[in-house]
Amino acid sequence: MGFKNEVRGLLVGRFQPPHYGHLSVVKYALEQVDELIIVIGSPQLSHFVENPFTAGERHFMLKKALDEAEIQAEHYYIVHAPDINHNAIWVAFVVSLSPPFHIVYSNNPLVCRLFSEVGVKVEEPPLFNREKFSATEIRKRMRTGEDWQSLVPRAVVTCIEEIGGIERLSAVAQTED
Amino acid sequence: MGFKNEVRGLLVGRFQPPHYGHLSVVKYALEQVDELIIVIGSPQLSHFVENPFTAGERHFMLKKALDEAEIQAEHYYIVHAPDINHNAIWVAFVVSLSPPFHIVYSNNPLVCRLFSEVGVKVEEPPLFNREKFSATEIRKRMRTGEDWQSLVPRAVVTCIEEIGGIERLSAVAQTED
Amino acid sequence: MGFKNEVRGLLVGRFQPPHYGHLSVVKYALEQVDELIIVIGSPQLSHFVENPFTAGERHFMLKKALDEAEIQAEHYYIVHAPDINHNAIWVAFVVSLSPPFHIVYSNNPLVCRLFSEVGVKVEEPPLFNREKFSATEIRKRMRTGEDWQSLVPRAVVTCIEEIGGIERLSAVAQTED
Amino acid sequence: MGFKNEVRGLLVGRFQPPHYGHLSVVKYALEQVDELIIVIGSPQLSHFVENPFTAGERHFMLKKALDEAEIQAEHYYIVHAPDINHNAIWVAFVVSLSPPFHIVYSNNPLVCRLFSEVGVKVEEPPLFNREKFSATEIRKRMRTGEDWQSLVPRAVVTCIEEIGGIERLSAVAQTED
Amino acid sequence: MGFKNEVRGLLVGRFQPPHYGHLSVVKYALEQVDELIIVIGSPQLSHFVENPFTAGERHFMLKKALDEAEIQAEHYYIVHAPDINHNAIWVAFVVSLSPPFHIVYSNNPLVCRLFSEVGVKVEEPPLFNREKFSATEIRKRMRTGEDWQSLVPRAVVTCIEEIGGIERLSAVAQTED
Amino acid sequence: MGFKNEVRGLLVGRFQPPHYGHLSVVKYALEQVDELIIVIGSPQLSHFVENPFTAGERHFMLKKALDEAEIQAEHYYIVHAPDINHNAIWVAFVVSLSPPFHIVYSNNPLVCRLFSEVGVKVEEPPLFNREKFSATEIRKRMRTGEDWQSLVPRAVVTCIEEIGGIERLSAVAQTED
Repeated sequence: MGFKNEVRGLLVGRFQPPHYGHLSVVKYALEQVDELIIVIGSPQLSHFVENPFTAGERHFMLKKALDEAEIQAEHYYIVHAPDINHNAIWVAFVVSLSPPFHIVYSNNPLVCRLFSEVGVKVEEPPLFNREKFSATEIRKRMRTGEDWQSLVPRAVVTCIEEIGGIERLSAVAQTED
Repeated sequence: MGFKNEVRGLLVGRFQPPHYGHLSVVKYALEQVDELIIVIGSPQLSHFVENPFTAGERHFMLKKALDEAEIQAEHYYIVHAPDINHNAIWVAFVVSLSPPFHIVYSNNPLVCRLFSEVGVKVEEPPLFNREKFSATEIRKRMRTGEDWQSLVPRAVVTCIEEIGGIERLSAVAQTED
Repeated sequence: MGFKNEVRGLLVGRFQPPHYGHLSVVKYALEQVDELIIVIGSPQLSHFVENPFTAGERHFMLKKALDEAEIQAEHYYIVHAPDINHNAIWVAFVVSLSPPFHIVYSNNPLVCRLFSEVGVKVEEPPLFNREKFSATEIRKRMRTGEDWQSLVPRAVVTCIEEIGGIERLSAVAQTED
Repeated sequence: MGFKNEVRGLLVGRFQPPHYGHLSVVKYALEQVDELIIVIGSPQLSHFVENPFTAGERHFMLKKALDEAEIQAEHYYIVHAPDINHNAIWVAFVVSLSPPFHIVYSNNPLVCRLFSEVGVKVEEPPLFNREKFSATEIRKRMRTGEDWQSLVPRAVVTCIEEIGGIERLSAVAQTED
Repeated sequence: MGFKNEVRGLLVGRFQPPHYGHLSVVKYALEQVDELIIVIGSPQLSHFVENPFTAGERHFMLKKALDEAEIQAEHYYIVHAPDINHNAIWVAFVVSLSPPFHIVYSNNPLVCRLFSEVGVKVEEPPLFNREKFSATEIRKRMRTGEDWQSLVPRAVVTCIEEIGGIERLSAVAQTED
Repeated sequence: MGFKNEVRGLLVGRFQPPHYGHLSVVKYALEQVDELIIVIGSPQLSHFVENPFTAGERHFMLKKALDEAEIQAEHYYIVHAPDINHNAIWVAFVVSLSPPFHIVYSNNPLVCRLFSEVGVKVEEPPLFNREKFSATEIRKRMRTGEDWQSLVPRAVVTCIEEIGGIERLSAVAQTED
């Protein structure tokens, strides 16, 4: 016996912040594979309008959101993959950071291309109401004061409130605008 | 309500490979805190005598070993902290990668000093038969053909066998010797 | 006795190039604190339209400009803080490079936010005729041939002339346009 | 005797991809110098619309294109110069990677400025029908399906076809658009 | 037609400095493959006792030595592979810098292991009087004043003399001893 | 008029910690040149037995020690030069960080060689009782409890006491031993 028969999938995102769209893809993937590796991209970025939260904050929010959705922690891994600015070795880099995997779930054409060029199977998961459930839309609403809370798990709302996330976004927006 | 009342601990190791001594400290810590963040140090290093396994392999072995010990995945986080060769900012770096934590468990005087200099509480956990249950001893036995299997969880044996870990260690030892 | 009673402030800028607005803030700060740490940001950047001068050239111009303004060198430190592209650890990085400080002077909302998130006191110094005394305005005038000399200390004019700064700006502008 | 009497030139490009304009400059330079060092810039970049090909692919295409043009390999060197994001030391970096050289051929004002600031002789080679023979134009045609094949040596067409270069460009364009 | 039928080999070395042992392996490999990629490792290192020469100096010496041995430049590529301190992605890094290759020639067990773990064919070439023809031996003789000139091609002697290589080695040895 | 007639020297050290030997060289140099640039090497290193203090701490100690010795701050610059692990470009790196200089004072053969290879004038300053006044000796005494205080300016003693430097050295020594 051993771990050779287990099938593992891999999912890449920035999770700025985690939202119901992410949960939907995680659930979709976990119906197909035994275990899922969730990769947090660009962990070094935070305190930017496009990337307000630290890797630690995103890891924390993601775990609490998955708990809230009753997705069992035994079934997934969370891994940070720092940007290396060298696309041609990025897949090897992810492989070195991750338990072995057999399929990649991604809607990003570059990510799909990089994995498929080295022979990794890639699947584009169905998108879950993408206009609404996108991190870009959520960050926009955070800045304009519109309702963003309904687009993310309750745990994410709590985390963002506890770290003063809205104030942070507002401050960094002044620098970038 | 929220997550502010949870107490989280942090434990740093290289896990080359994970062994029963590590499990013992994890159990000790989880009796004291609600959640534990397990930090894998030097994730960029592998294929060296002192650091044979990749971060992904170590993450995988650690998770499977914790499963085997029936330590529930809901209670811990696994985070990789790449070496930055700048001790004075290493604590801030770990903080940025990790959920919030309140106490550090470490027997490494440098790690203890770095955290305590910035006011983080540090505790030295009791060591569990350190002569035997040390990664240095285990790697030595792997190279000499002595029994190392009894010092690590069964899942770690399986992982190392599946990746040809003993052959790898033997190959890299020829380069370094 | 010792240095514990001294109050030190910190001021961050890119100084591309130093101008009278910078001198005005330095003077303002030195009325409030015993010593001032002047941090040169993005020292690795030069030979760009937005960042024409090297860290060494900026350090030199700044020192000569402060001499000219009769601000005594005993009262300040000049420190270079290379970009690390990791906002969440930037404050710790600056702390590791600098003598201890107690207050930060900045009009940059991101800088203010990063320091205040970790509990450092921040003050926005009064701006000195910002439309005119801004490095962006000065670099624009350098390129268009308008008067920029009256906006910077005489020593800065001399330094820029001695290194052929106007010719450099003109050359790099051709590449970027 | 020795190598002191040889005159060597240096030519910098990104070669995304190599085209007849590049060959024209190489031929022009080799009429003036004994040997030419051809520097491939930004070798770390690939799988971007502006930088689709890896350093290895570009090195390969360039060598095969020079073979096709019957430019003898004894007369040139190909060197990769990774971006260092520090213009002021870039010339020293190139010097450290390259055989000694005495003249730089470049039409890039920044490159010319950086070399001439440290006293290296610079010459702007005549451009060969630049509207047509430019890598930007060629990449544009690759994306729109227009004829690009006539602008590059036959060997470059073959290489790009063998690696699925058009499909790659099309995939990464979806991510960037 | 195309380049798909060509067989390419890859050879890694530091070439501190190139010697007759290197030439012997190059010749051996070129009898088996159509083209050879010669990888210069640790190009960033120079001015150390173990690594006295820059990448550019080594590239230059190697090319001149191969010319002297009448090995035709059409048949090989010279590529620099900077150290990345991440063994697990080193093969992917080399792949990204190099024309496609099918076999690796190496006597270094780590290098052999890294390539064979990802399925690349590896062969250990016969060693050519290793006690004498080793860069370590040659550097030792350079420091002690013994005959080293007979162990390297005449072109290498000339290059080292032209750059004052013996004086450099002697100077850096004083720092390291 | 201008700054072209000023003669500036450059002095490199790690200052772990600053001691009377350093002050002696600074005084010696300032008798020969108008201004001195003091370069703090390896600023990224701290919390090691060989490198206990941060760049900021060393900068602070050095400035206070120079004040104590009544060396006027108008006459010197303090610059940090991070390690780049690329000897061949280190001089260009220092040049980019520093005001222009005309002579280097150093007793390190590697430093002397690197500067003289690119034509910078180098002088070895007289050593001031090197057995006693060496940072290695001082750190050794700090660890063994012998008198180290008499070898450094009073300001350095005060700074080290205020940061708990002896305790730090003792803690990190336990990790390294």
